[in-house]
Amino acid sequence: MQDFDFSHWANAQCRQVEQALTDWVGIGAPAGLGEAMRYAVLDGGKRLRPLLVLAAAQAVGGNAAAALRAACAVELIHAYSLVHDDMPCMDNDVLRRGKPTVHVAFGQAQALLAGDALQAQAFELLTPGVAEVPAAIQADLCRILARAAGAQGMAGGQAIDLASVGQPLTEAQLRQMHRLKTGALLEACVLLGAACGQTPASALAVLQTYGQALGLAFQVVDDVLDVVADAATLGKTPGKDAANDKPTYVALLGLDGAQALAQDLLAQACAALQQSGLADTRALLALARQVVGRSH
Amino acid sequence: MQDFDFSHWANAQCRQVEQALTDWVGIGAPAGLGEAMRYAVLDGGKRLRPLLVLAAAQAVGGNAAAALRAACAVELIHAYSLVHDDMPCMDNDVLRRGKPTVHVAFGQAQALLAGDALQAQAFELLTPGVAEVPAAIQADLCRILARAAGAQGMAGGQAIDLASVGQPLTEAQLRQMHRLKTGALLEACVLLGAACGQTPASALAVLQTYGQALGLAFQVVDDVLDVVADAATLGKTPGKDAANDKPTYVALLGLDGAQALAQDLLAQACAALQQSGLADTRALLALARQVVGRSH
Repeated sequence: MQDFDFSHWANAQCRQVEQALTDWVGIGAPAGLGEAMRYAVLDGGKRLRPLLVLAAAQAVGGNAAAALRAACAVELIHAYSLVHDDMPCMDNDVLRRGKPTVHVAFGQAQALLAGDALQAQAFELLTPGVAEVPAAIQADLCRILARAAGAQGMAGGQAIDLASVGQPLTEAQLRQMHRLKTGALLEACVLLGAACGQTPASALAVLQTYGQALGLAFQVVDDVLDVVADAATLGKTPGKDAANDKPTYVALLGLDGAQALAQDLLAQACAALQQSGLADTRALLALARQVVGRSH
Repeated sequence: MQDFDFSHWANAQCRQVEQALTDWVGIGAPAGLGEAMRYAVLDGGKRLRPLLVLAAAQAVGGNAAAALRAACAVELIHAYSLVHDDMPCMDNDVLRRGKPTVHVAFGQAQALLAGDALQAQAFELLTPGVAEVPAAIQADLCRILARAAGAQGMAGGQAIDLASVGQPLTEAQLRQMHRLKTGALLEACVLLGAACGQTPASALAVLQTYGQALGLAFQVVDDVLDVVADAATLGKTPGKDAANDKPTYVALLGLDGAQALAQDLLAQACAALQQSGLADTRALLALARQVVGRSH
């Protein structure tokens, strides 16, 4: 196996994803809606979720057209959740990825609609004609994404988050909130990629363990960065969680404790991949290291 | 063919839909989210959209499990759109189906999340395991619903509506707005039902014509009722459109002109069905008559 250049791989994948998003998002949408959708999605974001989908699809030798669609679909779900989460009735944030948030730029009503339309378009992307992607894969992708986005996934986690402001949470409760709020969609990325190929049940279980560890690690690092990073690096307003009296891993475990937990989760994710029996897990490994080592 | 008792048919179908919605909506959702989702969906609404799905599925001899899931899914999309549409940043309505709107009862943040989660659950309902519904039908249903709900369907129509407040619209522009805002989802009901069976292309085209005429008729009648009905009959605040300076068919064509248009569309829908070559279009016919003859 030749040396793996992660930056080269990630750049090539990101170019493909950006092109697809540019070609697809909000095209044909009337009355300024398309502009708001594209503003929310294009030219921003680390594209971690699409890269996870593509890395998992690569690990299982999955259908490339399906994987690209799934990569874009999960990014649309992520983007819509940020648009709605930033609205005044939720986190009331005005800065995101270094730009005014969607409701600041387009008004609250358009932001609400843009988020709604992005969620619908995610499922549109997953269901092209059967000439492009087999129907069985389309159905599997929709099932995985809908569950991860909904009341027992991301939206449910946001509801727990909402209910927990100003409440003392145990580590178990905090973990449950994040397992849904951010973890479910990150885990879904890996499952979406796996669903693009013929993945044996044993490998699927291992990929799920990887996805769960990575999802939690992502949130722990997010909490750490909210304390240690500045707005320019972060691309959003730091210190918001503490200011809003939201429970965080740093509040619960201290800064050192949270950093140690992130390292422990990285080790779990890597160990899972080593047991997977999959041919090529190099991109998945590199992504896990990047999530824990990131500075924004 | 024996006499068709529409009330009997509709009551039986509605009972089945109510039971399924009661069994499925928001179950397992944490932190009050499930309650908000169920409040938005249960014990309210005429269930016109589910009945259209089931009537179309019956006309083509469609898969019953798929049709029931599609019927419920389209109702979740409809319900989520009402929740978001009623929010202060949109129509700011406080009364819906005779009850306080979701954001009044649960707060804006929970209403936003409940709407988001209902949209996701619609696609969850369409994608059970393949033992229950063939994967090809699942994929078709997701494709039809996503397109109808998204930027080139319902959400797009709402964006046009938003942009048109206080603007004079031609009849063509008004028709385009409603074709998307309410028509796309009503048309999708018929297509969803048809996708549950093996529907020949010619029959599909006819069902689409029926769905389009019915969708537009629904909106024309809505505009008429907004003028002539009272809050108790309507279950929501009447006269809102005129108060908000929204374009309506009554404003454009006068009350008589709008009522004549509704009758003309009903005739178109009925004529389409008579050409369809489908075995049993009695429920579809009765539903079109009900849409145009309704008082709320």
